[in-house]
Amino acid sequence: MRNLKLVLEYDGSSFFGFQKQPRHPTIQEAFESALSKLLNRKTKIQAASGRTDTGVHAEYQIVNFKTPNPMPVSQVQKGLNALLPRAIAVKEIKEVPFDFHARYHVRSKVYEYRIWNAPVRSPLKPRSVHIPYPLDIPKMKKGIAILKGRHDFRSFASSRGTSYPDSSTVRTVYRFQLIRKGHLLIFRIEADGFLYHMVRNLMGALIELGKGKITLAGLHHILKAKDRRLAASTAPASGLTLVNVRY
Amino acid sequence: MRNLKLVLEYDGSSFFGFQKQPRHPTIQEAFESALSKLLNRKTKIQAASGRTDTGVHAEYQIVNFKTPNPMPVSQVQKGLNALLPRAIAVKEIKEVPFDFHARYHVRSKVYEYRIWNAPVRSPLKPRSVHIPYPLDIPKMKKGIAILKGRHDFRSFASSRGTSYPDSSTVRTVYRFQLIRKGHLLIFRIEADGFLYHMVRNLMGALIELGKGKITLAGLHHILKAKDRRLAASTAPASGLTLVNVRY
Repeated sequence: MRNLKLVLEYDGSSFFGFQKQPRHPTIQEAFESALSKLLNRKTKIQAASGRTDTGVHAEYQIVNFKTPNPMPVSQVQKGLNALLPRAIAVKEIKEVPFDFHARYHVRSKVYEYRIWNAPVRSPLKPRSVHIPYPLDIPKMKKGIAILKGRHDFRSFASSRGTSYPDSSTVRTVYRFQLIRKGHLLIFRIEADGFLYHMVRNLMGALIELGKGKITLAGLHHILKAKDRRLAASTAPASGLTLVNVRY
Repeated sequence: MRNLKLVLEYDGSSFFGFQKQPRHPTIQEAFESALSKLLNRKTKIQAASGRTDTGVHAEYQIVNFKTPNPMPVSQVQKGLNALLPRAIAVKEIKEVPFDFHARYHVRSKVYEYRIWNAPVRSPLKPRSVHIPYPLDIPKMKKGIAILKGRHDFRSFASSRGTSYPDSSTVRTVYRFQLIRKGHLLIFRIEADGFLYHMVRNLMGALIELGKGKITLAGLHHILKAKDRRLAASTAPASGLTLVNVRY
């Protein structure tokens, strides 16, 4: 048996997220179907670095799977790229030690959230959310500074994520940057892990901050309250892309 | 009557080109339908700077129309953006002298053609054509130098463009650049006018040059022959974007 690690890129627009589910197209289902066809044997992945939601994209998603098939890795990559839908690509592939696990061994993940902040939408700027009113960028940067670091992010976990065992809603945000490219705002966040909907909930709060709907003191209060009923709205999935995974 | 000039941006993926035609969604049809609804009166554009083909995008397309309606331009813009499909946006609008004509008064237009040149496709790089084999970039740059300037481009006009009157297949290519951004190759071409399929036919020839299927002498011969039967294949529409129009 070999353990293969793959880097996937995908446009999540037309998928119901990563994780397999009945009656809806998902990245996992498309991938395992191509894989099983290529290897001529029903084959499942062992894990992905994490599950992206419906509509979320990935420049760099990691999966691994185990197979007794001796096919050279370059041939596995070519075969998968020929069988996969155009919206999914295998960017890299390599054999890794047998105990490598794409989820358990993650040290950090990096997401980007993109906002097109101009009065008029831009049809040629996909992977971004259109916010037509002005945002207070300096205040949003101050908000980012509040959120960076090691915190209990329970206030920013969606209700579906209720079953976190004791203290497991503590995460460390190593980096959180705001990069401006004209009207395009790119928020880049790296953490040792993310709670369910955490990036989109953080972005929801930052957007409300930028609009003046909450204050910096209010944001601080939400974080400290560890109560998800206080959290701001969840920002749309379509602005979110998984851009890196570190092991 | 007022004459209004608009800048449109659109993602051409799901349209059958700019020009109205029966039974197929086009940019012009979508635009005139929104316009007529907004002004509560059947209204057509006078002209566009040019007609983009099926699948071709525009960052900057110009149209003009005449209307007796006194609605403020900012309200026309907002109304159109509310009524138009998401894939089309009115970026700018202003009133211009009554004799302004979006096609007749064009001094030059600028197109970009984008190639993703890497072994594996990139689902998150839309508006580009995937070429998986290596291209000889220095040779393509030499090819660009041959094509720049004032020439009879008859060899690069598609057969549908047979009805050019005498000498009207002469065009001046003011600029033609190749910009590399990692695996993304951006060809930017500015000319006083373009024959039907001209950019895609020039790109078809440059791609064959880059693949070694034709030589620089061969390209020179095709240009001088003024015979479209010699031309290389037409590059796919999906890599092409109209990016600027100068008056």
